[in-house]
Amino acid sequence: MFFASDNWAGAHPRIAESLAREAAGYAAAYGTSDLDRRMEERFNDLFQREVAVFFVGTGTAANSLSLAAVAKPGGVTFCHSEAHVTADECGAPEFLTGACRLFPVPGPNGKMDAQALSAAIGRFPPGAVHQGRPMAVTLTQATEMGTVYSLDEIEAIGAVARSHGLPLHMDGARFANALVALGATPADMTWKRGVDILSFGATKNGCWCAEAIIFLKPELATEMPFIRKRSAQLFSKTRFISAQFEAYLDGGLWLDLARNANGMADRLRAGIAASSKSRLAWNTTTNEIFAVLAKDAATLAEDRGAKFYDWPVPAETPDLLGENEVLIRLVTSFSTTADEVDRFLEVLA
Amino acid sequence: MFFASDNWAGAHPRIAESLAREAAGYAAAYGTSDLDRRMEERFNDLFQREVAVFFVGTGTAANSLSLAAVAKPGGVTFCHSEAHVTADECGAPEFLTGACRLFPVPGPNGKMDAQALSAAIGRFPPGAVHQGRPMAVTLTQATEMGTVYSLDEIEAIGAVARSHGLPLHMDGARFANALVALGATPADMTWKRGVDILSFGATKNGCWCAEAIIFLKPELATEMPFIRKRSAQLFSKTRFISAQFEAYLDGGLWLDLARNANGMADRLRAGIAASSKSRLAWNTTTNEIFAVLAKDAATLAEDRGAKFYDWPVPAETPDLLGENEVLIRLVTSFSTTADEVDRFLEVLA
Amino acid sequence: MFFASDNWAGAHPRIAESLAREAAGYAAAYGTSDLDRRMEERFNDLFQREVAVFFVGTGTAANSLSLAAVAKPGGVTFCHSEAHVTADECGAPEFLTGACRLFPVPGPNGKMDAQALSAAIGRFPPGAVHQGRPMAVTLTQATEMGTVYSLDEIEAIGAVARSHGLPLHMDGARFANALVALGATPADMTWKRGVDILSFGATKNGCWCAEAIIFLKPELATEMPFIRKRSAQLFSKTRFISAQFEAYLDGGLWLDLARNANGMADRLRAGIAASSKSRLAWNTTTNEIFAVLAKDAATLAEDRGAKFYDWPVPAETPDLLGENEVLIRLVTSFSTTADEVDRFLEVLA
Amino acid sequence: MFFASDNWAGAHPRIAESLAREAAGYAAAYGTSDLDRRMEERFNDLFQREVAVFFVGTGTAANSLSLAAVAKPGGVTFCHSEAHVTADECGAPEFLTGACRLFPVPGPNGKMDAQALSAAIGRFPPGAVHQGRPMAVTLTQATEMGTVYSLDEIEAIGAVARSHGLPLHMDGARFANALVALGATPADMTWKRGVDILSFGATKNGCWCAEAIIFLKPELATEMPFIRKRSAQLFSKTRFISAQFEAYLDGGLWLDLARNANGMADRLRAGIAASSKSRLAWNTTTNEIFAVLAKDAATLAEDRGAKFYDWPVPAETPDLLGENEVLIRLVTSFSTTADEVDRFLEVLA
Repeated sequence: MFFASDNWAGAHPRIAESLAREAAGYAAAYGTSDLDRRMEERFNDLFQREVAVFFVGTGTAANSLSLAAVAKPGGVTFCHSEAHVTADECGAPEFLTGACRLFPVPGPNGKMDAQALSAAIGRFPPGAVHQGRPMAVTLTQATEMGTVYSLDEIEAIGAVARSHGLPLHMDGARFANALVALGATPADMTWKRGVDILSFGATKNGCWCAEAIIFLKPELATEMPFIRKRSAQLFSKTRFISAQFEAYLDGGLWLDLARNANGMADRLRAGIAASSKSRLAWNTTTNEIFAVLAKDAATLAEDRGAKFYDWPVPAETPDLLGENEVLIRLVTSFSTTADEVDRFLEVLA
Repeated sequence: MFFASDNWAGAHPRIAESLAREAAGYAAAYGTSDLDRRMEERFNDLFQREVAVFFVGTGTAANSLSLAAVAKPGGVTFCHSEAHVTADECGAPEFLTGACRLFPVPGPNGKMDAQALSAAIGRFPPGAVHQGRPMAVTLTQATEMGTVYSLDEIEAIGAVARSHGLPLHMDGARFANALVALGATPADMTWKRGVDILSFGATKNGCWCAEAIIFLKPELATEMPFIRKRSAQLFSKTRFISAQFEAYLDGGLWLDLARNANGMADRLRAGIAASSKSRLAWNTTTNEIFAVLAKDAATLAEDRGAKFYDWPVPAETPDLLGENEVLIRLVTSFSTTADEVDRFLEVLA
Repeated sequence: MFFASDNWAGAHPRIAESLAREAAGYAAAYGTSDLDRRMEERFNDLFQREVAVFFVGTGTAANSLSLAAVAKPGGVTFCHSEAHVTADECGAPEFLTGACRLFPVPGPNGKMDAQALSAAIGRFPPGAVHQGRPMAVTLTQATEMGTVYSLDEIEAIGAVARSHGLPLHMDGARFANALVALGATPADMTWKRGVDILSFGATKNGCWCAEAIIFLKPELATEMPFIRKRSAQLFSKTRFISAQFEAYLDGGLWLDLARNANGMADRLRAGIAASSKSRLAWNTTTNEIFAVLAKDAATLAEDRGAKFYDWPVPAETPDLLGENEVLIRLVTSFSTTADEVDRFLEVLA
Repeated sequence: MFFASDNWAGAHPRIAESLAREAAGYAAAYGTSDLDRRMEERFNDLFQREVAVFFVGTGTAANSLSLAAVAKPGGVTFCHSEAHVTADECGAPEFLTGACRLFPVPGPNGKMDAQALSAAIGRFPPGAVHQGRPMAVTLTQATEMGTVYSLDEIEAIGAVARSHGLPLHMDGARFANALVALGATPADMTWKRGVDILSFGATKNGCWCAEAIIFLKPELATEMPFIRKRSAQLFSKTRFISAQFEAYLDGGLWLDLARNANGMADRLRAGIAASSKSRLAWNTTTNEIFAVLAKDAATLAEDRGAKFYDWPVPAETPDLLGENEVLIRLVTSFSTTADEVDRFLEVLA
């Protein structure tokens, strides 16, 4: 009953096997091996266009260096008020972009509102040196609240960004979960809707440590080799990342893993909604669930060994909790089993 | 015949097995799992004192964040003129310390001279704001030229650093190779000689990606949790590093691997010195060899599939090469075999 | 009728005379001359305690380096949502602190609410590496909306800061105007209410270029000599700043100048409130006035040569303007005359 | 007898008068006033081509922001080993360029050798991510050793820079002194010889605080408005700088002032060379003199009130001093008088 986070899971056996297989033998270092090159090309197929790919070690690095690639003195990036980049990365995006800033844009359900975005950008008149200047927009798909932007919503944000000449970045720490939830292709959910740079996360979905920055507009990546190296994100044995991606993408494993996570979340959601001791705090469609539980039930679940986090009540819904209720977050993963889910739901019976 | 670099090798089978074993099951993320804690404590034993341990992803990160931990506005770190931090890290130490500087100190055989170090520090009179101020000394063990500092030499450098109140950092990308070459213990080669912070590298010696910053003075590490996170070096599934270290240190595997690398280098050195087509450019005692070869021999070796790098002639020995001679670098690794070495030496027969 | 900003004025004749007088003769450079030392000591008297003083060139530098003095990796400074540091300094505070962040705290009348501040700090639980950590609180006195914090309000903010162990900085770009408005002493309005660091601005109030960072807790200033120099704010002929401060403080000139600015603002306020073509948008007590004018009147004023800025309607009062009305900002200065004010008021007659 | 530094002098009376004249009246702030614009245009005439001009507060800011304008991730700037940017600015160039590095190039007489420069750049093969990459070359005219580059020498350096596609910056803290020494025009000594960006210093030569960055290739300045603002170098009352430049350039005052400084230095040089108690340590042609004095004479001079600095013996001439001799630096300024010089020379009689 490990629902604390999808990064509490380990790695899928096929990922581990791929690493073991690659362990023998020699190959050129620093991203120049045949395997590294092959994996970079693999992403061209995946995205149905030529892309530039840079492997890095953490999701925070992927987000931060994506923004560093388009950084400008005085630059400001627009993100949702609760986005991971601004709330949970200890200032790494600011630090690794050379002190560019993040400007919070509100919006319900963890999603940046296109009109609010437009208004926020409007606060920075072109050439106004005191305010600084817009440099990028970033959105998270799936969001920190477990929701997903629809393709139309992404397109609307993309249109605002494009109208101001700003590149659009997508934090795809849970990219696969969002893709499966929408039934879309990688191309559909990115460049066809205006996304220029993607943090393609694989760690949370069954890898040990595999993150890629995908430049859907390769011309934005010209500075990246130097940006990555001076940020200490160029691995010598890059193969250990490539080998993970090889197994991850092979035969659609990555989508199967996300389908498991989302499917187990569906099973949890159904049970939570059906119980008199719990309800869904808001609707989610991926592998994150926010639930209101009777305190007794939550305590009982913990006593039985369930792992999950208490969650702060969002400012926009101050009256969410009744007496003796608690808000919790549950996250399923590639390795969650139906048995685990059912044991949790027994608590709510 | 892969002698290009020790980071062209993959990972030792026991490292791969350890990762595979750990892949199943759940554990707390971001360095808080039982295994992470256990491995951190393992280093206390290894160094025979209480240390603070921080895992990071690359050797460049280990060096840069070691210095960031002791950074000060206007700070200057003293290093050998050809040290990896100044010559091969694309300015990452400067970038990740918030623009602190590296000041080159000369010295023969790739080793910083203690007197030259003292003179260099003397250029920065206390309180002189224009020059900036000393903040640290860093040395590389084994050095970039394949040599090692003797314990006395480390102590001499340590004494200079201490007399100026400066912390001493050791770049131990090839720590195990140096240790084996000297027949010393980790404690002997570090804090007993004045080393305060160590980049403990394991990647080159048989891991996929395992680097640790060891604070031999734990009180220097108070800022490190934030420094590491904002530099995007805090891995969510830290277990993938810990599991490597577990196998690496278990039963002295790490020293066995370094012994293999150094031993194969001895075998190469003996053959090179004995041949009329080659000679050692200078003496080395670890797994790096710098050799002068007849151009014909070098070409033949490459034709037969040997991988190695041509190397620039050091400025201090401009007359190193005779006519039709070339300087090359050969690096052995944990996985180099006697057969590989012997096939290379056949070229020189 | 120059009401665009107090920095459109030049310098008071006594400032210019002081500079001319000091122009002859020699003195030690870089802040070490007798005059520099004397002026630094002058601030001890002014603040009735021993302070550490650092002259810099701009208000932005004063604010940014004040925060740099207390910066920490992952550090977050709390400020009002519309504070100058976050809205008008092009990211200089972030850049010059090595990428520390500013966290917006709401509050009516341009003033940070002490409870909202407490809640904002509460979002950063001690030791939580992902969020980063609080490092300082900064407030602006007088505020960007022309209001002033009462002594009690400053004390309330100071109490919150102190209870979290955070230093409190005051942006005093219009320090003298606030002091005169409150009838307080410098000590009353700063350290007696919990302020630890002050940007003491003199440029807007009659100097050419004179800004001082006053450390009311001198022990916070230990890094400042290096912070200032590496930020390119150590002037060689520091006397040109000291000579301005000498005349500025001598005989209470600075308070007389602020009294003129505030008094002329009172005269403007009275006229605006009395006219049927205008009203005060909100109450202010210093030299900034925000007024709602009939569009015709605003146009007429401009036609007659009045200089002022149109101002965006604050988000908290979206219905501020009626039909054919406009919001403008008027700023008086040390050199504003009653005649100028009266000519402006004629437009509203 | 103030020979400590040219920045111990105050300001020329005509500078002070200009400031006093401008003190009255109002003008637009932040570099947008008529006077600011007029002065910017004045530089077009001075340099006989269209240039982009940015006023800043200190020479360190001028140098640092010049390099920031052409900074790149991993960027390296080549400078003389003893250049002011690397020896005397506390790391400000590194800090304000976002951690770009300075690479020392040797050369006799304080001048970078064109061949040594070429060799240094050659250490950075294009595309080699580990080393970083060249981004600029900077030379100081007049040099820190009191010498000047001949026009041919500048051209040779310019040719090397251009052949590698690198912008050439000139630190002109003593630009006027060099110009007068060479009898050249500003155009001759800059863009006609390959200089792209100039730190045009006026503070040392009779202003209070007047430094300008001149982009002789204006297309390099596109980022500068934001770079300057976020570095806290945009002054609100920019007029106080413009007014100084107005008087400084008017009627060739600046060249007259430099002629005085250089001429007084000639007088000193002649006396020092003629005395048995002193000699010139090396030849200089501007307002800096390095002299070897009998210790007794140096002590006597100090006793009589002369101000000058002891100077460290350059590493390249370790045997410079005989027994009981000392190396000193003497600097003349715009305000040095023949009487002062003669009183100093009396000591050597």
